[in-house]
Amino acid sequence: MRNDVDLKAIFIGDKAENGDFYKEQMDRLMESHFGWRKDYQPGDEPSITLDDQRTPEFLATKEHIEDVLDQVDSRLRAGSIPWASAGRYWGQMNSDTLLPAMLAYSQAMMWNGNNVALESSMATSEMEAEVGEDLCQLLGYPEGWAHLTHDGSMANLEGIWYARCIKSIPLALAEVVPDTVAGKDEWALLNMSVDEILDICSKLTGDQMEAVKAASSRSGKNIQKLGKWIVPQTKHYSWEKAADISGVGLDNVVDIPVMSSYRMDIDALDKTIAKLVAEKTPILGVVAVVGTTEEGAVDECHKVAELREKYAKQGVNFYFHVDAAYGGYGRALFLDTDGSFIPYDQLDAKFKEHDVFHYPVKVSEDVYNGFKAIATADSVTIDPHKMGYVPYSVGGIAIRKQAMRNIISYYASYVFEKSVKAPDLLGAFIIGGSKAGANAAAVWAAHRVVPLNIAGYGRLVGASMEAANRWRAFLKDLTFDINGTPVVVNVLDNPDFNMVDWTFQVKGCTDLAATNRLNELMFDKDSYENGEVYSMGFITSHTTFSKDGYGTSPEPFIKQMGMSLDEWNKAGQVTLLRAAVMTPYLREDGIFASYSEAVKAVMQKKLEQIIEHEGSAVGA
Amino acid sequence: MRNDVDLKAIFIGDKAENGDFYKEQMDRLMESHFGWRKDYQPGDEPSITLDDQRTPEFLATKEHIEDVLDQVDSRLRAGSIPWASAGRYWGQMNSDTLLPAMLAYSQAMMWNGNNVALESSMATSEMEAEVGEDLCQLLGYPEGWAHLTHDGSMANLEGIWYARCIKSIPLALAEVVPDTVAGKDEWALLNMSVDEILDICSKLTGDQMEAVKAASSRSGKNIQKLGKWIVPQTKHYSWEKAADISGVGLDNVVDIPVMSSYRMDIDALDKTIAKLVAEKTPILGVVAVVGTTEEGAVDECHKVAELREKYAKQGVNFYFHVDAAYGGYGRALFLDTDGSFIPYDQLDAKFKEHDVFHYPVKVSEDVYNGFKAIATADSVTIDPHKMGYVPYSVGGIAIRKQAMRNIISYYASYVFEKSVKAPDLLGAFIIGGSKAGANAAAVWAAHRVVPLNIAGYGRLVGASMEAANRWRAFLKDLTFDINGTPVVVNVLDNPDFNMVDWTFQVKGCTDLAATNRLNELMFDKDSYENGEVYSMGFITSHTTFSKDGYGTSPEPFIKQMGMSLDEWNKAGQVTLLRAAVMTPYLREDGIFASYSEAVKAVMQKKLEQIIEHEGSAVGA
Repeated sequence: MRNDVDLKAIFIGDKAENGDFYKEQMDRLMESHFGWRKDYQPGDEPSITLDDQRTPEFLATKEHIEDVLDQVDSRLRAGSIPWASAGRYWGQMNSDTLLPAMLAYSQAMMWNGNNVALESSMATSEMEAEVGEDLCQLLGYPEGWAHLTHDGSMANLEGIWYARCIKSIPLALAEVVPDTVAGKDEWALLNMSVDEILDICSKLTGDQMEAVKAASSRSGKNIQKLGKWIVPQTKHYSWEKAADISGVGLDNVVDIPVMSSYRMDIDALDKTIAKLVAEKTPILGVVAVVGTTEEGAVDECHKVAELREKYAKQGVNFYFHVDAAYGGYGRALFLDTDGSFIPYDQLDAKFKEHDVFHYPVKVSEDVYNGFKAIATADSVTIDPHKMGYVPYSVGGIAIRKQAMRNIISYYASYVFEKSVKAPDLLGAFIIGGSKAGANAAAVWAAHRVVPLNIAGYGRLVGASMEAANRWRAFLKDLTFDINGTPVVVNVLDNPDFNMVDWTFQVKGCTDLAATNRLNELMFDKDSYENGEVYSMGFITSHTTFSKDGYGTSPEPFIKQMGMSLDEWNKAGQVTLLRAAVMTPYLREDGIFASYSEAVKAVMQKKLEQIIEHEGSAVGA
Repeated sequence: MRNDVDLKAIFIGDKAENGDFYKEQMDRLMESHFGWRKDYQPGDEPSITLDDQRTPEFLATKEHIEDVLDQVDSRLRAGSIPWASAGRYWGQMNSDTLLPAMLAYSQAMMWNGNNVALESSMATSEMEAEVGEDLCQLLGYPEGWAHLTHDGSMANLEGIWYARCIKSIPLALAEVVPDTVAGKDEWALLNMSVDEILDICSKLTGDQMEAVKAASSRSGKNIQKLGKWIVPQTKHYSWEKAADISGVGLDNVVDIPVMSSYRMDIDALDKTIAKLVAEKTPILGVVAVVGTTEEGAVDECHKVAELREKYAKQGVNFYFHVDAAYGGYGRALFLDTDGSFIPYDQLDAKFKEHDVFHYPVKVSEDVYNGFKAIATADSVTIDPHKMGYVPYSVGGIAIRKQAMRNIISYYASYVFEKSVKAPDLLGAFIIGGSKAGANAAAVWAAHRVVPLNIAGYGRLVGASMEAANRWRAFLKDLTFDINGTPVVVNVLDNPDFNMVDWTFQVKGCTDLAATNRLNELMFDKDSYENGEVYSMGFITSHTTFSKDGYGTSPEPFIKQMGMSLDEWNKAGQVTLLRAAVMTPYLREDGIFASYSEAVKAVMQKKLEQIIEHEGSAVGA
């Protein structure tokens, strides 16, 4: 018997196969909670007597509650997506979520801890501290610290806030304790490394540090001096919001083109940095993305780290944040059960040992190195509610050194810091305030059941990558005969992670606008836009690559569709269908074949409807 | 039979009296969900077969899940607070939460909608839109819009973000479409009203509006020109974080002293505004607080509104935000079942009609007007997870006019806005990103069971205010004989809402430091600091009013304790015990008497331990 987690036991299941187990556990946990309530000061008078429970008002309110819950239930049934389907759902970043996480959430919610303060949540605050340790270990941060955030956007905002606050400290040092940075001009001050800044701060007295913090960017001063925030073109829109909200400003956001792999173009990054340095414009920070939202691309973090080293030698230091909101848990693929990072040449053997793949999946060395070098970043966004398979919404951020949090911290009047594992007031160290302890319990339970290594999340993320590979191969070979009109499928060949993008195209059609229309209509018919999701046998999502946002990177794909760049320039965008493949269930040829055949039949029918109705408007 | 909500039927109950009902409903909802999974494409092969469920790996993983859930359960039991106790818990802002909200959360979590986008959460996004309408109606915003936030701190951050973005628009107009603000100098531009700004924006073309937004504070420009953000001294610390994070900066935060009522001193506010205007310093905005976190004070919003009118006549317009995170749901006390705002002179009759109080509770005209004038603010923070009795964490923000959201909005590449009730991409209009649809379901269910008027939340909030009044009266009369040493209790007489602060004092002790020590030790013994919360018969929280943070406002309380102001100046702070009274169960004299006697006995024992051990160090 293998010790690896069994992927079939950790979800409720496509057809609720583990529903009885879920219910049995839920019942047990509810009873336990009720017992706890009864046994607290058991001699106290009950405040709801049997007489109270027999009044007409009581009975009417109870009945009304049932009515309301029926309404909630019926609206959910009518307006929800069957993410849990093993092979019918090929769309947004969602799937079945971990059974232990859901149970732990429901259970902990009854205790209603608020992890903003230890006083309100001793159990779940400690769980959050332990989950933070888990994430630091996963990401390769031995001296780091991590906490759960409300979501990934908040973690990204916190990332830019960390950068802004820390990089503003040298100017504050120059103002408050100038001796500590004697001899440095403004350029030098704006180019100090995070470690150098932390080192100076560690030598200040408490009062000095408070004065320095008061003069840092939290004062409102100097933010516009800090320079440029560099992101790949493929960044999530939350980075624009983060630059806006943090006061850094969109005028300071510099987009780096991506290559046809949809990874950030490192040469372009290098040139941009060199240009900024030459004109003495400081660089606040650089963001790399591990798992882009639309393409699943994994930026080469190791090359960003190399650039950082190179420029550090020239006295230019920038903050480095990795947005691994989506891909972060994928790093578990490369962590052995003893916590060591598996050498690349042993990867396939380890995959075999832990039965990770039942289908050929090749992890390229670039992707491997990209994941590995997450550990070199100053901070990382990583979302349990994405590839952590925990229910919405719970994100996370990790910082490379715990001392970084002292730069941004606040204290409220009712806080006395004591020596415990979790801070007395987590709210003093984070952007958010009140936060459900239940989220910490959910993530804690998930991490205990599914370890953050190759035997746990490695297998789970691996299963999703395998399903993506199967889906990609299936689509590549897919053709339709729509009453004599042949339709083909073009797949964006971007196998970094578990995202698959593709287009349907009337064979030989060289009209991009018409092809876009075909794919938009396919989306409308196969998504919530249709209005009857539950009756749909195939559900997907879509994305649009525009010239504005993507530059030239989609050009190879346009050519792959047999179209001229004139078409691309004319249409200005290409619409693709898009699947963040998260299903853990497609690891057997037979199962995959039965679903792919079923889905193909739905596609055939939808294409027939569209082509019959639209004809030449979609290229037929 | 009355139609008002029965407060005894809407919680699990102190002793889990409604536990069976909770369990019965939960079971029903789980079965319903499992059925939905099975019935989606019912002919599909199950991906987890009976054979799969019999493998040793499957059984081992299942067993491991049980183990992990046991650990979660045992840690929760050891490290949680019995908030639900009818009369033993007198501390933080927490209590039993609404049974329908908890069930709706657990149920909706299984569907795992993400309200960031309609595509991922049709049912729960519409619920959030409806909840937003509820909140607008509660707050008196007929043209408003509201949404749920991750927490109250995020709502406050969003409030200052709204202010910053909107107040920066005139400078952007002057840059991009100067004709629209012809003849206005910078002072006039920085003093335009929200309505005037919205009016001009409504006349711009789409392209013009995008260009204006790009030149607004989201660019990073002009933020430091916008002026001062004025808050009462009693503000929650999230306002400091919000000023920091938003780039407005702590240097621009101006604290207004509070009176001995702990309400903002409106004269001081007037003088501060006059002084700033005289020196031509713009005012970005003013915050009033409805329900301060430490004192439960309700600022006189109506007087802030009057000041706004007065200064508007001088061409000075500032943004006005009400932080009603805590108190917001209290406005339901004044809303009749037909939605009208109850005239003050009919209030007592209406309270009687709806059986709101069983004990004398006087709502002063100032408090009434403070709540009423929330409707005059530009935006309001209101948290369902506080007086909405919904589990953590879900906050909320409402804006006075829906058009305000167009000033701050973003679009992502995959969004096509269609004409539906909820926006296609809520994430484009809010600070957060992914958000649990389950929170919307929870709040929706709460609002449907407990209407936002005098018959629903009015009764519930009223019950908590009644319990606070009973507690205040009980403490006022409380004395102890600790082996010959008399101990008295001083109550901060601040009946605006449901917060009670008090101190224990050795009778006649005029040493503030010693008295502080006594109260700190009482907190240590009656809180999580003790380590054994479950065995404690009385649990409380505490707060500290320092000279730094509170100025002279605590002086009357110091005198009430029979101490000189020299003591106050010497100690520099006073430690109080603090109870946000939320229990809905103390509406009968007999029940209150039995709990207060029980709690008094615990206090007696703790005072004995402390005084025996500490003696003169605590003033004995």
